[in-house]
Amino acid sequence: MKIGVITIGSELLNGSRLDTNAYWIAKNIIAYNGEIICKKSILDIEDDIFSALDDFLKTSADMILITGGLGPTHDDITANSLYKYFDDEPIFDSSYWEKLKKRYTSKGFDVRNLNKSQALVPSKGEVIQNKLGTARGLCFNNGNTKIIALPGVPSEMKSMMNESVFPMIQQSSNISINYKILRTTGISESKLFKNLEELINKFSDVNIAFLPSILGVDLRISSKNKLSFDTLLKDIFSVIDFYIYSDKNESLEEVVSKILIDKKITLSTAESCTGGHIGDRFTNVSGISSVYMGGVIAYSNTLKINLLNVDEKILNEHGAVSEQTAINMAIGVQKKFSTDIGISSTGIAGPGGGTDKKPVGLVYIGIAHNGIYKAYKFNFNHDRISNKMITAQVALNILRNTLIKLDK
Amino acid sequence: MKIGVITIGSELLNGSRLDTNAYWIAKNIIAYNGEIICKKSILDIEDDIFSALDDFLKTSADMILITGGLGPTHDDITANSLYKYFDDEPIFDSSYWEKLKKRYTSKGFDVRNLNKSQALVPSKGEVIQNKLGTARGLCFNNGNTKIIALPGVPSEMKSMMNESVFPMIQQSSNISINYKILRTTGISESKLFKNLEELINKFSDVNIAFLPSILGVDLRISSKNKLSFDTLLKDIFSVIDFYIYSDKNESLEEVVSKILIDKKITLSTAESCTGGHIGDRFTNVSGISSVYMGGVIAYSNTLKINLLNVDEKILNEHGAVSEQTAINMAIGVQKKFSTDIGISSTGIAGPGGGTDKKPVGLVYIGIAHNGIYKAYKFNFNHDRISNKMITAQVALNILRNTLIKLDK
Repeated sequence: MKIGVITIGSELLNGSRLDTNAYWIAKNIIAYNGEIICKKSILDIEDDIFSALDDFLKTSADMILITGGLGPTHDDITANSLYKYFDDEPIFDSSYWEKLKKRYTSKGFDVRNLNKSQALVPSKGEVIQNKLGTARGLCFNNGNTKIIALPGVPSEMKSMMNESVFPMIQQSSNISINYKILRTTGISESKLFKNLEELINKFSDVNIAFLPSILGVDLRISSKNKLSFDTLLKDIFSVIDFYIYSDKNESLEEVVSKILIDKKITLSTAESCTGGHIGDRFTNVSGISSVYMGGVIAYSNTLKINLLNVDEKILNEHGAVSEQTAINMAIGVQKKFSTDIGISSTGIAGPGGGTDKKPVGLVYIGIAHNGIYKAYKFNFNHDRISNKMITAQVALNILRNTLIKLDK
Repeated sequence: MKIGVITIGSELLNGSRLDTNAYWIAKNIIAYNGEIICKKSILDIEDDIFSALDDFLKTSADMILITGGLGPTHDDITANSLYKYFDDEPIFDSSYWEKLKKRYTSKGFDVRNLNKSQALVPSKGEVIQNKLGTARGLCFNNGNTKIIALPGVPSEMKSMMNESVFPMIQQSSNISINYKILRTTGISESKLFKNLEELINKFSDVNIAFLPSILGVDLRISSKNKLSFDTLLKDIFSVIDFYIYSDKNESLEEVVSKILIDKKITLSTAESCTGGHIGDRFTNVSGISSVYMGGVIAYSNTLKINLLNVDEKILNEHGAVSEQTAINMAIGVQKKFSTDIGISSTGIAGPGGGTDKKPVGLVYIGIAHNGIYKAYKFNFNHDRISNKMITAQVALNILRNTLIKLDK
């Protein structure tokens, strides 16, 4: 199904707010065989709404999705504009009005100030229920095109899409779509493409989108053909299994935390260049406190010596950014915190502090567990914050690969 | 100047990428008296480009800004579509072509595969220089409307906007705009509005936009009238000075770090519920290593006792989430790390771990310096990650207010 999206509101055009509604719809509609063919953001002006509708009704869109401007204030003109555009005499829904009054009174609102328009329903269209708010959605038909208007509040819009609009799209497309997101890290988009090129050409009835970010590449795989979809998915795993950390849209910290919690393996962190970012990501996961004991942010050498028992000789001979220091930080924190595993980061995040021998972006990650220890060397080439982010991601992935091996 | 924005590319419609280009333009164009009146995202299809141009040329826009589709691949059809739309026979720029060839050869590219279209220049329009890439911009005039096309790569688009397009807008508007962003934290949008309502009504020729986020509210103030602007700005400071942490668009960690570095005051952190997020934010600031020594992520009680010397009695009597524990964590880290200031966080980030007496969102922040110590109590009411983010923001702000007082 082809879909056009119109988002209404001055906040979308004056730089107050990123248009995340349209992005969310685009990302999620694919699973229901929907495809966005154009998107427009306009001000709360009746003429602009009319001309956007004129414009979109000329396209091949089967559905026009409108968000924003359904609230009770004078800025919210979407409903009235639609009644006017479709020449609809709306009907007053007195039972909904009673509900609304009760709701507002219980919140201490003066109902005399309330706009009755929220209780109107179209005579030529339908309303769409809103479980989370007072502004119901509207649905009109124009020839073969469905026009749907939803509130702009993200939580309400998403709930109504999930409850009403996605099922509507799926039903009308009459085809069930097989759909999965595979999250990868540690391999570039171009290498990933090379590895999968043959498979992509072989399964022409499966759509594979590459969605790269600084932390990795997500593969979005969808197909109407279940056999092709299942076979390709199996084949992809056999080729790039090592790089896939989730097929359930989880974050890397969620995946690693799950393994730690399942196996009751405890962890501590010793961070220099990441400055707390690894700990921050772990503690974003609810329930992590049973396995993550904590860590040391050892930004100064004195702390590396005093708190992590890194030998001063090692720091003098090899420097703070070295394999030896990374390993000794990991061993130090593991012992100090009495955990099963210790993981460490040391590097030059930049923009200052680089030398010819140790340039900005040089990073070592150390890991210690069961008397075994190892350091991994990397050269990242980004700005300070990105270097920190990539270092944390790589550290989490080293931990994941270590834990998987412990498995066997 | 009224501006329409057209962004071109399938990645903007299939959920691969948020349209941050249009957002960046909207946010920055205000300083040059520009105002976005509509925005459209379309696929790389010639007909769609034509109909978007038809549509936008009918509006009151003085300028149509197009981004995307100027690269060398077969998907990049923006330039050709514009030549066709404006009936322009482009001219081959052989000196630019030589430059391009050299550039690609030096990167090991086979120039035989190169698309010559990047070396074309319009006969009826102009090119816009691109310092960062090979795709130059295009500029056409249609009646009183300027049509400008720029590459979609954010760094190139921003550089070309700053170097060429913003000056063009400013020149043609012939009015200089007074413009400032005041960043506030620790006060809600509605309270901020109440505090400033009188001033807003008094200075009707100054525009004030409230831009709220989870970490605070930015005030965007702009006016053509310099006297009103200066007077209002002074008045705003006299009313809400306490909440403004920057008038230079800096982050709170940048502001606090600057004070620490200026005054050579050293800092350490003891984090429980924020799990490293405070350290992470500080270490995002380049040059911070001279004053930020590091910290402890003390997620377990054992670590609070062993590493931060929090008395076991205090933990047993008052609990880990208490004023006493927060204070003793701050004192502990300050002593252990031999810094001037120690700051701590302890709380219940949720969603689990709450009780009637200590609900999810209860947070204490402790601070210790020069033998003085204090704890601050908060009740946040958000999800886990937001609670962590707000806690770190409040801790940074407490530090800022403490440092300002040390000043006097």
